Amino acid sequence: MIDLRSDTVTKPTKEMREAMYNAVVGDDVYGDDPTVNELESYAAELVGKEAAIFVPSGTFGNQVSLLTHCNRGDEVILGDDCHIVQHEVGASSVIAGVQLRTLKSDRGILDVAEIKSKIREEDIHFPKTGLICVENAHSNGRVIPVDVLKNIYAVAQENNIPVHLDGARLFNAACTLKTEAKEIAKHCDSVMFCLSKGLCAPVGSIVAGSRDFIDKARKNRKLMGGGLRQSGILAAAGLVALREMTKRLHVDHDNAKLLGEKLNELDNVNVFLEDTHISMVFFEITKDIDYRHLVDYYNDNGIKVNGPENGVMRFVTNNDVKEEDIDYIVECTDKYLNR
Amino acid sequence: MIDLRSDTVTKPTKEMREAMYNAVVGDDVYGDDPTVNELESYAAELVGKEAAIFVPSGTFGNQVSLLTHCNRGDEVILGDDCHIVQHEVGASSVIAGVQLRTLKSDRGILDVAEIKSKIREEDIHFPKTGLICVENAHSNGRVIPVDVLKNIYAVAQENNIPVHLDGARLFNAACTLKTEAKEIAKHCDSVMFCLSKGLCAPVGSIVAGSRDFIDKARKNRKLMGGGLRQSGILAAAGLVALREMTKRLHVDHDNAKLLGEKLNELDNVNVFLEDTHISMVFFEITKDIDYRHLVDYYNDNGIKVNGPENGVMRFVTNNDVKEEDIDYIVECTDKYLNR
Amino acid sequence: MIDLRSDTVTKPTKEMREAMYNAVVGDDVYGDDPTVNELESYAAELVGKEAAIFVPSGTFGNQVSLLTHCNRGDEVILGDDCHIVQHEVGASSVIAGVQLRTLKSDRGILDVAEIKSKIREEDIHFPKTGLICVENAHSNGRVIPVDVLKNIYAVAQENNIPVHLDGARLFNAACTLKTEAKEIAKHCDSVMFCLSKGLCAPVGSIVAGSRDFIDKARKNRKLMGGGLRQSGILAAAGLVALREMTKRLHVDHDNAKLLGEKLNELDNVNVFLEDTHISMVFFEITKDIDYRHLVDYYNDNGIKVNGPENGVMRFVTNNDVKEEDIDYIVECTDKYLNR
Amino acid sequence: MIDLRSDTVTKPTKEMREAMYNAVVGDDVYGDDPTVNELESYAAELVGKEAAIFVPSGTFGNQVSLLTHCNRGDEVILGDDCHIVQHEVGASSVIAGVQLRTLKSDRGILDVAEIKSKIREEDIHFPKTGLICVENAHSNGRVIPVDVLKNIYAVAQENNIPVHLDGARLFNAACTLKTEAKEIAKHCDSVMFCLSKGLCAPVGSIVAGSRDFIDKARKNRKLMGGGLRQSGILAAAGLVALREMTKRLHVDHDNAKLLGEKLNELDNVNVFLEDTHISMVFFEITKDIDYRHLVDYYNDNGIKVNGPENGVMRFVTNNDVKEEDIDYIVECTDKYLNR
Repeated sequence: MIDLRSDTVTKPTKEMREAMYNAVVGDDVYGDDPTVNELESYAAELVGKEAAIFVPSGTFGNQVSLLTHCNRGDEVILGDDCHIVQHEVGASSVIAGVQLRTLKSDRGILDVAEIKSKIREEDIHFPKTGLICVENAHSNGRVIPVDVLKNIYAVAQENNIPVHLDGARLFNAACTLKTEAKEIAKHCDSVMFCLSKGLCAPVGSIVAGSRDFIDKARKNRKLMGGGLRQSGILAAAGLVALREMTKRLHVDHDNAKLLGEKLNELDNVNVFLEDTHISMVFFEITKDIDYRHLVDYYNDNGIKVNGPENGVMRFVTNNDVKEEDIDYIVECTDKYLNR
Repeated sequence: MIDLRSDTVTKPTKEMREAMYNAVVGDDVYGDDPTVNELESYAAELVGKEAAIFVPSGTFGNQVSLLTHCNRGDEVILGDDCHIVQHEVGASSVIAGVQLRTLKSDRGILDVAEIKSKIREEDIHFPKTGLICVENAHSNGRVIPVDVLKNIYAVAQENNIPVHLDGARLFNAACTLKTEAKEIAKHCDSVMFCLSKGLCAPVGSIVAGSRDFIDKARKNRKLMGGGLRQSGILAAAGLVALREMTKRLHVDHDNAKLLGEKLNELDNVNVFLEDTHISMVFFEITKDIDYRHLVDYYNDNGIKVNGPENGVMRFVTNNDVKEEDIDYIVECTDKYLNR
Repeated sequence: MIDLRSDTVTKPTKEMREAMYNAVVGDDVYGDDPTVNELESYAAELVGKEAAIFVPSGTFGNQVSLLTHCNRGDEVILGDDCHIVQHEVGASSVIAGVQLRTLKSDRGILDVAEIKSKIREEDIHFPKTGLICVENAHSNGRVIPVDVLKNIYAVAQENNIPVHLDGARLFNAACTLKTEAKEIAKHCDSVMFCLSKGLCAPVGSIVAGSRDFIDKARKNRKLMGGGLRQSGILAAAGLVALREMTKRLHVDHDNAKLLGEKLNELDNVNVFLEDTHISMVFFEITKDIDYRHLVDYYNDNGIKVNGPENGVMRFVTNNDVKEEDIDYIVECTDKYLNR
Repeated sequence: MIDLRSDTVTKPTKEMREAMYNAVVGDDVYGDDPTVNELESYAAELVGKEAAIFVPSGTFGNQVSLLTHCNRGDEVILGDDCHIVQHEVGASSVIAGVQLRTLKSDRGILDVAEIKSKIREEDIHFPKTGLICVENAHSNGRVIPVDVLKNIYAVAQENNIPVHLDGARLFNAACTLKTEAKEIAKHCDSVMFCLSKGLCAPVGSIVAGSRDFIDKARKNRKLMGGGLRQSGILAAAGLVALREMTKRLHVDHDNAKLLGEKLNELDNVNVFLEDTHISMVFFEITKDIDYRHLVDYYNDNGIKVNGPENGVMRFVTNNDVKEEDIDYIVECTDKYLNR
């Protein structure tokens, strides 16, 4: 099967399996797992922060960051289309107990002036603005220019408000921007990034920030049920993800671009080529079809895809999708739509 | 002093003071206060609902409604500029624990199609859309046409989502629309309206809805510390507010219109005349001034005003502001700005 | 009707009605209500604290204190039988989001050594102990000796943990202890006491503490929907409550003692005379009866009572129960049980 | 090193490492991981429930169960000394937002009559009793007889209140009771048990219950950040834990008993032999010593131990502690205390 549903479907590599098999482990709640310690310290360095902590998932990492930055009732400024708003089951109102102040985003990019206008003064009627969240690469497939983050961070710092970066796909962003992850992450106080997704580790994400922030996050991680034991097994794969798999993300990006261009040549397909910054190809089908039938058709032909969200299809390339699969995917699509 | 800061500054009338003096009271937690019972039943009838409950404030009424409609973690769709988002200290994330999904509003009016697009399907990543909130009259001074509410309610009902109306100034809206409050309130499942503000009662608001909803709200009111004892004292003033003071709101509206027109004739003043629907006059001063100095100047001349919010001044007429005060206010303004 | 259900059923006195009628009021959210200001400052002085705030109810006062003292997730040490645990609808888990650590109480008295043993050290598994709550007079009718509070406060201070006193009936306690309220309240950081209940004000309670604490509580009061407008109406009655009604609580206490003694002389009645410290008489009926029938019987004979809680009946004397009513109540009881 | 700090320190076995190396995995958020599916279905069967779900930790499993059983503000009845109260960082007040009603436990055993007396009737002052929690084996080292659970469950069912079993060490309890896990778990609606701890899996726990309950828990798991991807890696070890490691827990129990008996023969050591039901030996040292120094001494001699909690030391046997280590541990202890 060619699985295009997401980059979350990636399987751990042989090297990861071997690293997990051989991992030296300990009880991480006691701070005793050497592989976790190695991962946390390597990850912190990679994004230029003092400290880092391993967490079970990207959602977990974002939510523990909200819980650690904010008091209950604080207001968080963020884009209307970001992952925390869209795909985290309303967790921020349950766990951190914060009020989301959602801004319109221009395909992932927030307007600095609008952010500035939403920061609250002290007034008996107002919650405190406790955090600004940004996302890069954005889950809509776009990479946000570093200058946008820089400008937002400047406004935040002027107002003593921390910035959290949801960098679930931080290394995809760095790859596209041809820069290092730390050059992006320097414009935030905390950053979450995933070891799974495009980097292929089976489970886990990292939150990095100041030592004090990570110390607090460690206790909050325990509260949220994320204090694991011999998690060095997972950390071992995470180290391979960071050391090796970051180097090959450009292959996924190139494949996505190629796939996008070829699909776009088909009749009845309109690919958002300008927004194909990473491994995600978004497209519309411009004729009336039964999407459930289409999904079944792909499946019967060995291609796993999701149905559309708001009328838009998404195909995601990843380590388990090879360049030679692309022509086959395009051909199947053409056959369905145009023959 | 002429107090233009808000309609919340209104003093109880002589008739209210007499009603409070003579009120027959009991312990309302036991359901024993006849005046509260009379108010709740009269209020329910007035807005065409099965039942109603007296609450200490408008914020309390909105928040107990959120708590009663929603489960923790539900998502609430509402306008970015509404009172629940702007002026309730982030309460909805602390008490009800709901996620706010704020939409851009066109000066108080929400786009029905946008609301529709934000209603969540069932998906493991999504919170449940638990409520839609509308506000009429809006705290920006505008009255929302009944058809807008009707269309929103239709979409909500199609999707089995309740609608709560923040009608803090419901009777102002009814007055402007030349209709009855119940004609507005029929397009929602629950409605909150204030007895204080323009209606001059010293303390208190009403939440009305189905009997089942109000029964649940009664227990939630106790949880929130709003179970009062001999509140018939306040209810007595509330009955005067609803029976008598609703009839004179047009005077405040006329005064506001007149004040707005006269201010607009001044140099360096730009009144938002099109948005002067009720007792609130919003205007910009088009020359550079020291607003703190301006506020002091008014105060020294017997006029209480607030400083600007986002550069916009607000003057509010009310029962304690007389038509004959208008020329004086305009003259003072002119003197400060233009002489 | 003779109403023995609670001291919450007391009606405002004529003097209170006159004070309310004549009250000078303003908008208290702006800090403009002179009567509220007078009440808050008088109340603070009375309990020896820097500042005080008017709140709508005792439950509101306790909950806003929990919210102000604690961060979400903190642990609060308190007696298993206290009002916050028993009669506040679980509010502390909804609003403040704190974990209650309930201790067995010896009829209202907590064991200092047990409190000490429950205070948490820093450990990744432990919540922070954020608050200790005591209650005096206790809602079980007993008054806690000052030394008990003093010892608890000493332990708390050694551990930098604040103490909140639920003094809903603080003046009853002071009356029984023949001391001033401030002599009790000096062994806590914050204290809540009610103006209603035995003191007969229709609505309202006070929270007092340090200026900083009250400033924060003021914002939290707004969040909880307790920011009222012309609440000077209620404050006027509250001032009468504190200035005049505190002087007559001994009458209720004497009446309770007399009622208890006379009931105890009846066959089939066992009064907890040793626990009759204030206006509350608790007793068991030692023969098998239908309590619902008993309640109806009293009612038909002009006496309002509640049914038993855990098999124990409670009769509460108050300003509207006169000494001459006692013999009648006893006679009715005797007739029902023994004839 | 001989590590006696906890059974959480156990390392994955060689068989587990091989199972992880070879595990067939998929994206579990899509329900695509065959190894997770196999584990969940095997685990459900083992405890006699309709369905089960893999979660990252025992704390996570307990908290997601509270969140799924209860509405915010519900009251949960449980023992004062149980793990949820003692060692989960106050999570239940942050995530589920429930009120804990802690009962004194007789070394882990709750009194059924007391539980019954704490179940709330409907009253405007009362939270709803939403859940009863029991724990077996208890974290104090004792195993609760099945009849105790049976009686509690009977009371719960009469009152339509669900029961959750914190069975972090369920298989230790089953081993000691010489029964099957499902014979214990049939007296509850949901059960959590750990694959790590004595069973040696590196990471993970299971929650089992009705299909409907587990469906809801699955969404709540996502909300809490526990939706993992290729967690089949961990599930593979979990399957070994359940299939193989459950068979050898009696070895740890025998070792604990032996260790306890031998330590108890030493001067100045008092072992709670009657409470040595599983792998945990609790003892007091009856002479005055510097515990920090003791911990260092053990460490210098190759034995890792924790300091005392409330004056009581705990040594835990586990898969990595061999019978031949026991004499050495006893000898070291004797040397320190008595020579």
